[in-house]
Amino acid sequence: MSYYTPSNGYPSNPPGGYSPNLSRYPSSRPRPHTHQHGPPAGSDPQLWQWFCAVDTDRSGALSVTELQDALVNGNWTKFDLDTVKMLMNIFDTDRSGTIGFNEFAGLWKYIAEWQRVFKHFDRDHSGSIEGRELAEALRSFGYNLSPPLLQALEIRYASGAPSAYGPPPGITFDRFVRACVTVKTLTETFQRADQDNDGWIQLNYEDFLKISLNAP
Amino acid sequence: MSYYTPSNGYPSNPPGGYSPNLSRYPSSRPRPHTHQHGPPAGSDPQLWQWFCAVDTDRSGALSVTELQDALVNGNWTKFDLDTVKMLMNIFDTDRSGTIGFNEFAGLWKYIAEWQRVFKHFDRDHSGSIEGRELAEALRSFGYNLSPPLLQALEIRYASGAPSAYGPPPGITFDRFVRACVTVKTLTETFQRADQDNDGWIQLNYEDFLKISLNAP
Ligand SMILES: [Ca+2]
Ligand SMILES: [Ca+2]
Ligand SMILES: [Ca+2]
Ligand SMILES: [Ca+2]
Repeated sequence: MSYYTPSNGYPSNPPGGYSPNLSRYPSSRPRPHTHQHGPPAGSDPQLWQWFCAVDTDRSGALSVTELQDALVNGNWTKFDLDTVKMLMNIFDTDRSGTIGFNEFAGLWKYIAEWQRVFKHFDRDHSGSIEGRELAEALRSFGYNLSPPLLQALEIRYASGAPSAYGPPPGITFDRFVRACVTVKTLTETFQRADQDNDGWIQLNYEDFLKISLNAP
Repeated sequence: MSYYTPSNGYPSNPPGGYSPNLSRYPSSRPRPHTHQHGPPAGSDPQLWQWFCAVDTDRSGALSVTELQDALVNGNWTKFDLDTVKMLMNIFDTDRSGTIGFNEFAGLWKYIAEWQRVFKHFDRDHSGSIEGRELAEALRSFGYNLSPPLLQALEIRYASGAPSAYGPPPGITFDRFVRACVTVKTLTETFQRADQDNDGWIQLNYEDFLKISLNAP
């Protein structure tokens, strides 16, 4: 069995390489105006270029909408709003509601690392993660989920509706990331709540709802 | 306090009125060809027209993609894929993976009823549901959620990222429906699990994950 282990089980801050949707600015068309505020000293010029291309209103920070317009899956569908919000939640460290250039550097690396994970587990190069590929990915991250649970995950994050006449559609990139982060978040929540380590947790209604709402 | 109670707490099968995005077919442009398969005898001609307009590939059934292209919020954003999948899950009763005309009739009425609920609780006519409006809606459905829980819901379903400098953005139509259905689903799950009615449930890891994954 092949085993893939990004830093501490999940991508965090490795170097980048994933390109946002820059089709609005092909090299033959005029470049957008130079950004009002220059790049911080010593910053990666290429990264600054990407940042400026995504910042379409030239505000110096990326809104959810700008990010959602820029982030595309292999099949050119946009990232789900919930995935973009999850990314904002991780990388908008100053809670401004937008992604500044320094925050963007972290976001960029995170997506690049997940891209590598995605490509690695997309064994049949279909551009999406199917049931067996998802099972292998999660197993390599240390999650040994039961077949029914894996099927529930596959259906939940499939990029389309399930039908009785075949397997559910595959999972596109952004939903794959969300699925993995959800499993990680819920597992950690469970382990924290299971203080005596007996495999069971007790929840009241309030905490039960809060846990479900806080998962991405 | 105003009190709004749709049939058994949530919309189910009331009469319709919500228009899908038909901007592709303004009346001055040629109509799409007549549908291969005619409407079932006695069916609503207007509903049949909507159905044919949404069924852009003339297959006689609506795919997730066709539905997502047709269903728009008040601000013209498309429904989230997860909301469309939730609707498919409710109305694709024969599990074909698509919505046939009879299934569409149910879906249509459901959306129309939720539209009325949404308009009713959008007190300030902003086109979105803000914190207080959400609290009132859920209270009228019989859910007395704590302020922290309401805030978690508001942030989770907001149509944008939260910031430290103000309230989270409002909730658009499709995400409002998803929020309400999620609260309903999770509450029913909790009540079923709390057999002795003491306000606490015991969960193992498997069930804990399954419950979170099965909520829309
Ligand atoms: Ca920020
Ligand atoms: Ca694949
Ligand atoms: Ca069907
Ligand atoms: Ca409002």
